Amino acid sequence: MTDKNRVLIFDTTLRDGEQSPGATMSHVEKLEIAQLLDEMGVDIIEAGFPIASEGDFAAVSEIAKRTQNSVICGLARAQFPDIDRAWEAIKHAKRPRIHTFIGTSPLHRAIPNLDMDQMAERIEQTVTHARNLCDNVQWSPMDATRTEHDYLCRVVEIAIKAGATTINIPDTVGYTAPRESADLIRMLLERVPGADDIIFATHCHNDLGMATANSLAAVEAGARQIECTINGLGERAGNTALEEVVMAMKVRNDIMPFNTGIDTTKIMNLSRRVAQVSGFVVQPNKAIVGKNAFLHESGIHQDGVLKNVETFEIMRPADIGLNENNIVLGKHSGRAALRSKLTDLGFEVGDNQLKDVFVRFKALADRKKEVYDEDIVALMQDTAANTESDHLQVKHLRVVCGSDGQSADLTMIVDGEEKTVHATGDGPVDACFNAVKAIFPHQARLQLYQVHAVTEGTDAQATVTVRMEEDGRIVAGQSADTDTILASVKAYVGALNRLIVRREQVGKDSDAKHISMYSH
Amino acid sequence: MTDKNRVLIFDTTLRDGEQSPGATMSHVEKLEIAQLLDEMGVDIIEAGFPIASEGDFAAVSEIAKRTQNSVICGLARAQFPDIDRAWEAIKHAKRPRIHTFIGTSPLHRAIPNLDMDQMAERIEQTVTHARNLCDNVQWSPMDATRTEHDYLCRVVEIAIKAGATTINIPDTVGYTAPRESADLIRMLLERVPGADDIIFATHCHNDLGMATANSLAAVEAGARQIECTINGLGERAGNTALEEVVMAMKVRNDIMPFNTGIDTTKIMNLSRRVAQVSGFVVQPNKAIVGKNAFLHESGIHQDGVLKNVETFEIMRPADIGLNENNIVLGKHSGRAALRSKLTDLGFEVGDNQLKDVFVRFKALADRKKEVYDEDIVALMQDTAANTESDHLQVKHLRVVCGSDGQSADLTMIVDGEEKTVHATGDGPVDACFNAVKAIFPHQARLQLYQVHAVTEGTDAQATVTVRMEEDGRIVAGQSADTDTILASVKAYVGALNRLIVRREQVGKDSDAKHISMYSH
Repeated sequence: MTDKNRVLIFDTTLRDGEQSPGATMSHVEKLEIAQLLDEMGVDIIEAGFPIASEGDFAAVSEIAKRTQNSVICGLARAQFPDIDRAWEAIKHAKRPRIHTFIGTSPLHRAIPNLDMDQMAERIEQTVTHARNLCDNVQWSPMDATRTEHDYLCRVVEIAIKAGATTINIPDTVGYTAPRESADLIRMLLERVPGADDIIFATHCHNDLGMATANSLAAVEAGARQIECTINGLGERAGNTALEEVVMAMKVRNDIMPFNTGIDTTKIMNLSRRVAQVSGFVVQPNKAIVGKNAFLHESGIHQDGVLKNVETFEIMRPADIGLNENNIVLGKHSGRAALRSKLTDLGFEVGDNQLKDVFVRFKALADRKKEVYDEDIVALMQDTAANTESDHLQVKHLRVVCGSDGQSADLTMIVDGEEKTVHATGDGPVDACFNAVKAIFPHQARLQLYQVHAVTEGTDAQATVTVRMEEDGRIVAGQSADTDTILASVKAYVGALNRLIVRREQVGKDSDAKHISMYSH
Repeated sequence: MTDKNRVLIFDTTLRDGEQSPGATMSHVEKLEIAQLLDEMGVDIIEAGFPIASEGDFAAVSEIAKRTQNSVICGLARAQFPDIDRAWEAIKHAKRPRIHTFIGTSPLHRAIPNLDMDQMAERIEQTVTHARNLCDNVQWSPMDATRTEHDYLCRVVEIAIKAGATTINIPDTVGYTAPRESADLIRMLLERVPGADDIIFATHCHNDLGMATANSLAAVEAGARQIECTINGLGERAGNTALEEVVMAMKVRNDIMPFNTGIDTTKIMNLSRRVAQVSGFVVQPNKAIVGKNAFLHESGIHQDGVLKNVETFEIMRPADIGLNENNIVLGKHSGRAALRSKLTDLGFEVGDNQLKDVFVRFKALADRKKEVYDEDIVALMQDTAANTESDHLQVKHLRVVCGSDGQSADLTMIVDGEEKTVHATGDGPVDACFNAVKAIFPHQARLQLYQVHAVTEGTDAQATVTVRMEEDGRIVAGQSADTDTILASVKAYVGALNRLIVRREQVGKDSDAKHISMYSH
C-alpha cells in the first residue's frame, strides 16, 4: 500500500455480526449483503466461519466466487481442519484471505488447557499451515486486551515470522479505553521485530460504548485496518459500527487525516438492508444511521433563523445517501422503471423474480398513494423471505379482534396439503399464532415480536419481525404488508420454515454452537 | 467536595433529552422520571427550560418542590427574563441551580449579531444577575468545541469572575474526539485564572459515536461533572448515555479511578421507563441496556465449557438491576403484593390508583399465565397515558382483517358524547385509524408506528407507540394490551388527546420552537 494514511475497512457483518443471537441470515441474504459491501468499497469481507456449518461453508464459497473487488476472508480456529476448510471455501476468490485465531489471555488459555509454550507452538504451526495455503493470512490473539503484554509481543512475533500478513488485536469483551487501545498498538509496533512489515488491525466491541473511539485511537497509533459491522451489529453490545468510524474520519479529517475506499453514499441503504435481514432495529438516536440522526427539533428550519446549515450540522444527509421522502414510483410506473429503481437500491433481479415483484408492487401501489424506496426494499425483503422455503405457506386468513375477544380462521398449505383451523387467543396475534400451532405443532418459544411502519402515514406497510427459539436454535422471520396481522402470520411462518431447515441439520448445529464460543 | 475523584452526574433527560423530536413527555411522566433519577443518586437534574412554555415551567417547579436530594437545575438563555423565570421555577428546591448559556463559536455569535466584546459584556451581566438570585450558577459557552481557544478562555474567566460555580463545555454538534476533548479541559484549567475554584463539566453529543469516550477523556483531564441522559436520549444521535459513562468508570476503575453517587442497580428500570415514555426504542445491541447486551450466543452456557463467567462478561446483569424472567405475580396475588411490587419498581400509587391498577392487573393475570416486572411497568405506563386527558375515549372496537380485506367498527366518547362509525382501510391499523379520523377529524400525520412485545411468549402484552405531527407539533401516544389492534387505537387516541392539549397552547408553542434552537 503506497498511501500510508489509507485505512483498510474489514467488514465482519456476515461473520461476527451474523453470530448475534437471533441475527441469523439466509444464504440469499448473505449473498446480497456481500454484494452491497463489495460495491460500497469494503476492502475485506469476512464472509463466515466455513467449518461451523454446511450453510456457512456454502455462503463463504459462493461469496468468494462472486465478489469482484473485496478480499474474501474465511475464519478458522487454530486447527488444521479449520484452516483447510476455510481455504476450501475461499480458494476461488480473486483475492482470498485466511483468518485464524486463538485466545491468548489467561482466561482463554485455560480453555484448551495449553501453557504459554504449547500455545506458542500451536500458533507457529497453524499460521505456517495457513500461509502454505494462501499468501494472505490474518492472525488474531483473541482477548488481546487482557493478554499479558510480554506474551502478546511474543506470540505476535511468532505469527509474523510464520507468515501472517495482518495481525488483528481484538478487544473481545469490549473492555478497553481509547488511550489503552492506542498504547497497545504503539507497544506492538515498537517492540515486535517485523511489525513494520505487516498491517495491524483493531477489532473492538461496544460493551462500554467506546468501540468507535477505541478503533480510531488504534489507527492514530498506527493500526491500518478497522474491523467493523454495519449498524454495529454483533454479539452483546455489538462490534464497532462501520458507518461511525468511516464518517468520523471523513468529517474530522483535519485531526484524523486517514482515508478509506468507502463510498459513503451507500451507507444508508446498507444500514437499512442489514437491519431488515437481521431483524435488529436501529434506534432513532443511533449515530449516523438513526432515524433522528439528521433530524433537528421541529421548527428550527421553519423559523428561518439559520442562515448556515453548519450551525447544527457537521454532515449532510446526502453524504450517507439519505434522501428522505423520495417518492419513487406510483401505480402508473412500468416494469422498466421498477427494475431501474431496484438496481439503484442494490437489487439485481432475474426476469422471473422481476415479474413476481412487479405483481406485488402493483398491488401495493393500488393501496398506497406514495411508494417510497423503503417500500420497495420491504417488498424485496418480503419476497426473499417467503420464497426461500416452502414447507409451510399461508393461504388464507380472517381475524376478528377488539373489545369482545379475538379469533382467527387460518388456511395453510403444509408440504402441499391444505389445512384449515379456527383458533382464539389473547389478542389477534396470539389467536393467529395459536392457529399456526394447531396446524403445525411445535415447541418453539416466541422471543421477540416487533412491528415497524416502513414509512410515515397510516396506510404504510408494516414490517413484522419475529424471533423464536427451540432447543437453543434461534431463528427469525420477517414480513411486510399493510395488514399488520397478515404480516405477523407470514413472519411467524417464515421463521418456522427456517426452523424446519435448521432441525434438519441437527448434528452440525450442535457442533456450530460449540465452535462459536471460540470466535472473538 | 472533599473527594477529588468524585464525578458529579448531571442528568438532562428531562431537558436535552425531552427536546428530541417526538420525545415530548407529559407532566406526570416528567415527575415520575425526576423521582427515579433522584432515587438513583443523580447529583443534578436539569428539569427543563422554564421560559420555553407554561408546561416546562410547571414541570420544573413541581420537580423542584418534590425532589429530596438532587440539585434541581433550570435552563435560561443569556437574557434577564429567562433567568428570572428559571429562578421562579426552581426557587423552592432544596438545592436550586440556574444554568445559563450563550453560543460563543463564530457561527453562533452571528445569530444574535454580537461581536466578541458585546458578547463578553452580555455574559458578565447575565451570570452576575443569575448569581444575585442563586448561589449555584452554571454557565455554558454553547458550541465550545468550535470556539476560538483564546476567546473561550476569555469568556470562561469572565463567567467565573461573575460568579459561575460550574462551567460546562458543550460539544453541541457532536464534533470532538477524545484527545481534543481532554486537551480543551486541560487548556482551560491551565490558562483560566480561578479555574481551580470551580467545577468543569463536559456535555457531549454522539453524532460521531464518541460521546462516552469524549466525556471520560474530559474527566481524565480534570472535568468533574458529566452531562448525560438515560439511553443517550437527545436530539439527532443523542447525548452521552448516563449508563455508559457510569458503568465504564465502575468496570474500568483500575484505569479511571473515579466514582459517582449512582446506584447502578436502578439503571435498567430507568432505561425501560425512559424508553416507554419517550417512545424511543433502545436497540438490541445498545451498550449496557440493550436487550442483547448481556446475551451470549445461545449454547455457550449450555455447553458448560465456561468455568469462568468473566471469560466473556465484564459486568454482571445484576449490576444494572437486570433480573430476567422474574415471575413476580400471578392471578392469586393480592393488592398488598401488587403495591409492594410497584414500590420496588419505583411507582408510588395512591389508594384510588392502586384500585384501578389492581383491576387491570387481575384482567391481565387472567389472560396471561406469567406476569413479569415488564408487564407491571407496561400496565402502569398505560394507566398514566390514559387518565391524563379525557377529551377522547375508546369505548368499543371490533375489527375484521386478513386476506379478504379489513374493516373496523369503533365507538368512542368525544367530550361525553358517544359516536360510532364503520370504516375500512389498508390493513386493520389503517381501518381503525380511519375510524378515529371519521369520529374526530384531524390533519395530523402519522410519523411513527411501532409495536414491541413486552415479554416473551405469544400471549405477551404489546406496547404500541405512535408519533404524529401537526403544524410542527409532535406528540406521542402509547398503550399496552395483549390485543395489538386495540392497543394501537388507544395509543393513537392518546396521542390525539395530547395534541388537543398542545393546540390549546398555540401561542406559547411557537415561542418554544424559537427558543429551542438556542439550547445546546
